[in-house]
Amino acid sequence: MLRLAVDSLPGSMRRVAGYHLGWFDAAGEPADADAGTADPRSSALRPAQAAGKAIRPALVLLASAAVGGIADSAMPAAAAVELVHNFSLLHDDVMDGDETRRHRPTAWTVFGRDAAILAGDALLSLAMDVLATGTRGWSASGPSAVGILSAAVQKLLDGQSADLEFELRADVGPGECRRMAEAKTAALLACACELGARSGRGAEFRVAHLRDFGAALGVAFQVVDDLLGIWGDPAVTGKPAHSDLRSHKKSFPVTVALAADSPSSLELRERYRRVEPCGERDLQRVADLIEATGARTWCQHTADAVLAEALDHLVAAGAPGRVEADLRTLAAFVTRRDR
Amino acid sequence: MLRLAVDSLPGSMRRVAGYHLGWFDAAGEPADADAGTADPRSSALRPAQAAGKAIRPALVLLASAAVGGIADSAMPAAAAVELVHNFSLLHDDVMDGDETRRHRPTAWTVFGRDAAILAGDALLSLAMDVLATGTRGWSASGPSAVGILSAAVQKLLDGQSADLEFELRADVGPGECRRMAEAKTAALLACACELGARSGRGAEFRVAHLRDFGAALGVAFQVVDDLLGIWGDPAVTGKPAHSDLRSHKKSFPVTVALAADSPSSLELRERYRRVEPCGERDLQRVADLIEATGARTWCQHTADAVLAEALDHLVAAGAPGRVEADLRTLAAFVTRRDR
Repeated sequence: MLRLAVDSLPGSMRRVAGYHLGWFDAAGEPADADAGTADPRSSALRPAQAAGKAIRPALVLLASAAVGGIADSAMPAAAAVELVHNFSLLHDDVMDGDETRRHRPTAWTVFGRDAAILAGDALLSLAMDVLATGTRGWSASGPSAVGILSAAVQKLLDGQSADLEFELRADVGPGECRRMAEAKTAALLACACELGARSGRGAEFRVAHLRDFGAALGVAFQVVDDLLGIWGDPAVTGKPAHSDLRSHKKSFPVTVALAADSPSSLELRERYRRVEPCGERDLQRVADLIEATGARTWCQHTADAVLAEALDHLVAAGAPGRVEADLRTLAAFVTRRDR
Repeated sequence: MLRLAVDSLPGSMRRVAGYHLGWFDAAGEPADADAGTADPRSSALRPAQAAGKAIRPALVLLASAAVGGIADSAMPAAAAVELVHNFSLLHDDVMDGDETRRHRPTAWTVFGRDAAILAGDALLSLAMDVLATGTRGWSASGPSAVGILSAAVQKLLDGQSADLEFELRADVGPGECRRMAEAKTAALLACACELGARSGRGAEFRVAHLRDFGAALGVAFQVVDDLLGIWGDPAVTGKPAHSDLRSHKKSFPVTVALAADSPSSLELRERYRRVEPCGERDLQRVADLIEATGARTWCQHTADAVLAEALDHLVAAGAPGRVEADLRTLAAFVTRRDR
């Protein structure tokens, strides 16, 4: 369905979007099959090297199954959230100046900044189209699917805006960082679960628990992703070593370390006040300082606690045993608890 | 309704969008009332200096009235097309590097490129939300309103993509230029008329004639706008003199002049092969060469012919006399035939 939708785009948009999604190479030729099939059911649960791949469509389909829905009615929402996710990646890569994603050059480095902005716009509009067309049978008394997705998009944009602003500020606290993650990351995961549950015509209390499961899972995912942004293996993450430190990103471990009361934190604050550290040795020193404040351990505990909160909501949603097990597997995969 | 919708955005997006729309100044304070009220009924038909202002919502409301619809049911579509128009302006200004719009610094020059991209994204998503929520009573058998708007957005993006590509090419013909204008400009005007007519539950043949009226009007508008991009008075257009020549934009007069068979055209082609003309005197010479090929007159005739085509569709749509008169006035305003 995702493929069909993207194939409907004008050629100029399809080429850039298809490259970004891993379907084509830069010349528009089909890429290696391994590089990026996007059928959510086949790829979401395999130990993909591309973190986050098709997580959102899988959440939609499983949340639908959790309330007894059928996959067919959840497919438009599954495609729509994946399109929104990729819209945001295309634009974020332009704003953040990131040159690598999923082990390949980012779209803007290949096609130019303007083409990446336009392709992102095309995916956002397409997401709304697919969702509006696919949910016309929804009851007119409840919230509209496009309204739910649009609210998540607005949060996501607000979160990206905060993320960019944080890079210029030295005094970002862990609380602000969490609110940013709730907006930038968790809102779309919550939306995926809510749309899935609503497409399966779930009772309101189940919709709410599944949405809250998605929201907590999103925060846990972001904490883990932030840990990997400093201590992750480039061969696994597909990003350069210490990438989040290079950009002065105010990720969870950084904000926790900066707020700590210790000699390491003091040296860290000094370093963050100065010009950016450039060399690999400087970055390693910053990473070690953050670890010395205890921020790494704190984040690991936080990820565990928020994941546990997510799983409480999952249990309360009362999904059939097999679906609950699949959602637990997915949650473990997202938070790297599966290895 | 537009104001209410934009007020619902997160603060970070509202600030930039409200500045762009002329409601706030750069500090977020209310701007002069004169600078940009956006109620379509009050401002569309006044001789605003800001060309194109609220044209699209006025088309929605008048197309609805043309088939006997009531304004209330057309309001969501009116707000949605204006939001999409402003989304595209925010992003186009970033891509084109334009520093002035509506006699004010463009949003990206005030808030930065990233903030303008995010605010554009927010308006696009909001447009779909407003339209989806406001058209839930539409029959499920016809096309969905969001689907119609999204198709127009895809054309608009494809047109902007072609426009950017044309700046790098010397061999753009008038035919390509027209197809680009049909995509970049006419698609949204056609969409405005179609959504208005459908919100008024017009018969299919009326919907089609009103849509084709909007499409032809869009092409006529673009031809006139291209003439103003070379020969317009900066005090009236709000853009620098010869602005389209500075950027090597392949507008209607330029493509017609480049394709002509005359000494002026030959000198023009020579100049376009060289590096950009920089000085005001060079730009004046290029403008004079274009005029000497007859391209200016050709474009004026084309604008008249396409406008006449639009008015034929308007007559065929069989609107009540008063509404047809209003649409004629709007068409004259859009194509500068009212002064």
